[in-house]
Amino acid sequence: MIAPLAVSMGEPAGIGGEITLKAWRENRENIPCFFVIDCPHRLAHLANRLGWTVPICPITTPQEAHDVFPDALPVLEHPVTAVEPGQLNKHSAKSVISSIERAVEFCLKGEASAVVTNPIHKHNLHNAGFGFPGHTEFLAELAGIQTPPIMMLACDELRVVPITVHVSLQQAIAELTTDLIVEKCAITAKALQDRAGIDFPRLALAGLNPHAGENGDMGSEEIDIIAPAVEKLQEMGIDAFGPLPPDTMFHEAARKTYDVAMCMYHDQALIPIKTIAFDLGVNVTLGLPFIRTSPDHGTALNIAGTGTASATSLCAALKMAGDMAHRQRQKQNT
Amino acid sequence: MIAPLAVSMGEPAGIGGEITLKAWRENRENIPCFFVIDCPHRLAHLANRLGWTVPICPITTPQEAHDVFPDALPVLEHPVTAVEPGQLNKHSAKSVISSIERAVEFCLKGEASAVVTNPIHKHNLHNAGFGFPGHTEFLAELAGIQTPPIMMLACDELRVVPITVHVSLQQAIAELTTDLIVEKCAITAKALQDRAGIDFPRLALAGLNPHAGENGDMGSEEIDIIAPAVEKLQEMGIDAFGPLPPDTMFHEAARKTYDVAMCMYHDQALIPIKTIAFDLGVNVTLGLPFIRTSPDHGTALNIAGTGTASATSLCAALKMAGDMAHRQRQKQNT
Repeated sequence: MIAPLAVSMGEPAGIGGEITLKAWRENRENIPCFFVIDCPHRLAHLANRLGWTVPICPITTPQEAHDVFPDALPVLEHPVTAVEPGQLNKHSAKSVISSIERAVEFCLKGEASAVVTNPIHKHNLHNAGFGFPGHTEFLAELAGIQTPPIMMLACDELRVVPITVHVSLQQAIAELTTDLIVEKCAITAKALQDRAGIDFPRLALAGLNPHAGENGDMGSEEIDIIAPAVEKLQEMGIDAFGPLPPDTMFHEAARKTYDVAMCMYHDQALIPIKTIAFDLGVNVTLGLPFIRTSPDHGTALNIAGTGTASATSLCAALKMAGDMAHRQRQKQNT
Repeated sequence: MIAPLAVSMGEPAGIGGEITLKAWRENRENIPCFFVIDCPHRLAHLANRLGWTVPICPITTPQEAHDVFPDALPVLEHPVTAVEPGQLNKHSAKSVISSIERAVEFCLKGEASAVVTNPIHKHNLHNAGFGFPGHTEFLAELAGIQTPPIMMLACDELRVVPITVHVSLQQAIAELTTDLIVEKCAITAKALQDRAGIDFPRLALAGLNPHAGENGDMGSEEIDIIAPAVEKLQEMGIDAFGPLPPDTMFHEAARKTYDVAMCMYHDQALIPIKTIAFDLGVNVTLGLPFIRTSPDHGTALNIAGTGTASATSLCAALKMAGDMAHRQRQKQNT
């Protein structure tokens, strides 16, 4: 049996608690077994407040989750300061951080098969001394890896990887190098082989400029930077092609010609996937020694505590983590 | 009765002829009355070659089109050098150019209600001394206007206007000014009022950077350039808002909150619309003294003469031109 998924609590003033309850309540038969690292009393209180019947079963080891899951939500006991929905409280920051740390620890020990993170509120954590821009960098630190991990967004119809991420568009253009593209593409190709069951992943590289520069008429990055990266990747035996005109590579027929679109900047990747699958996108971190997914939304403080937040993206993140764990084991057994 | 639409021939070695035949053959009952400015013999020969029954009726004035259209394709006689499909011939350039000129002339005289252009092959026209980057600039010259016209792409679900267009991404960032944004937005708002039947058009302005810069953390153009443009537009009485995070403004629910997305660069506009409506997008030129639409594809020399090219985008362009002509007349009559 595959070990259960470890779900971190996320910001307790946000929607993490209620979408976790909702995922179990409405979808437990369609998602893989998981446990959440949170305070059982807090979640029981939240379910009660929302009028939802969700039996909560406190557990102390991940192994207990399998027996519990069909009948109750397994909650791995974790101390959490009481917090009102929508009201950030800096005293909860330590619990939020250690919930992530414990999830990673269970994964590295093999007691959990993947980490699925509920959204955190970076500002609230920064105030409490958390020195990372976000989840991804913190996970890299916990895993002790040097190469920055890669953010992939995925839905049933499309996978995208932004090669440059949270920087201004100007800065993204400045950061783009052949080496950076080759590095990100190689990590992505390997992750799709190991964890997505794709033996020969097809990587479509986007151009940077309109019409992919039209032979240098509208920008030279395609000629100077991207085409040489494609060449290098092909020499490495990776099925990479491009640079493609960015505007015509994301429609339904075009999407069938590749397994992942490697994009030059944040919005080139995120506009198409959020346009077609706003609620269904899953954030997957590649290049870590364990599987990690997360729903592709924030803490939604404004609706926290109302029970209206959708658990769709969290359920998709749980399913994808489960699938990846399954594929990874198949791969390891062959 | 509204005057017929004037369709230009486009590059005769491309798919213009066959999609025009196909539009009439398969869709004449669902599209507005039009005539094409082309050589009747050429089109009859092409129909014959494709095995399509399309009666061709030569006409010499636009007024004849209405009577002819239900039973035959009205072709306004225009001399054209014989050309093989897929084989560019510089001797055809003059006919291509004068077909556009005549379409505009009919519009300006009120004998046609809109210009719908078939795709041209810019390179073939440039070789013959055509000094314009494309249709749009040529039409502006013919109309005698100084302000460059605006390209809008539209489908049933979305309208987008790229504020900077066919320049490198680097150059697009450099070109962006508050004045440019205000100018393009004002022209767009007026065109939607006059020709799309929208009394108070809602303009959603996109940010330039990821997350619209996140309060200046990832780029300052939102604060320095775009927000001041929104303010100016509001002072002018235009319902403009933003800058919005570009990745979350194009999904189905978000699209319902505005009438047009004003985008900062080519692919920010074209990625979402081509992702959701690859074959159905229509190119609309705003800011001309007449209505002009065109299918959103090129000459497709590689499949010309095979009859496989889709007339979907041309039909959408014809319908949109007809709708706009209708709205404009309603507006003028109120």
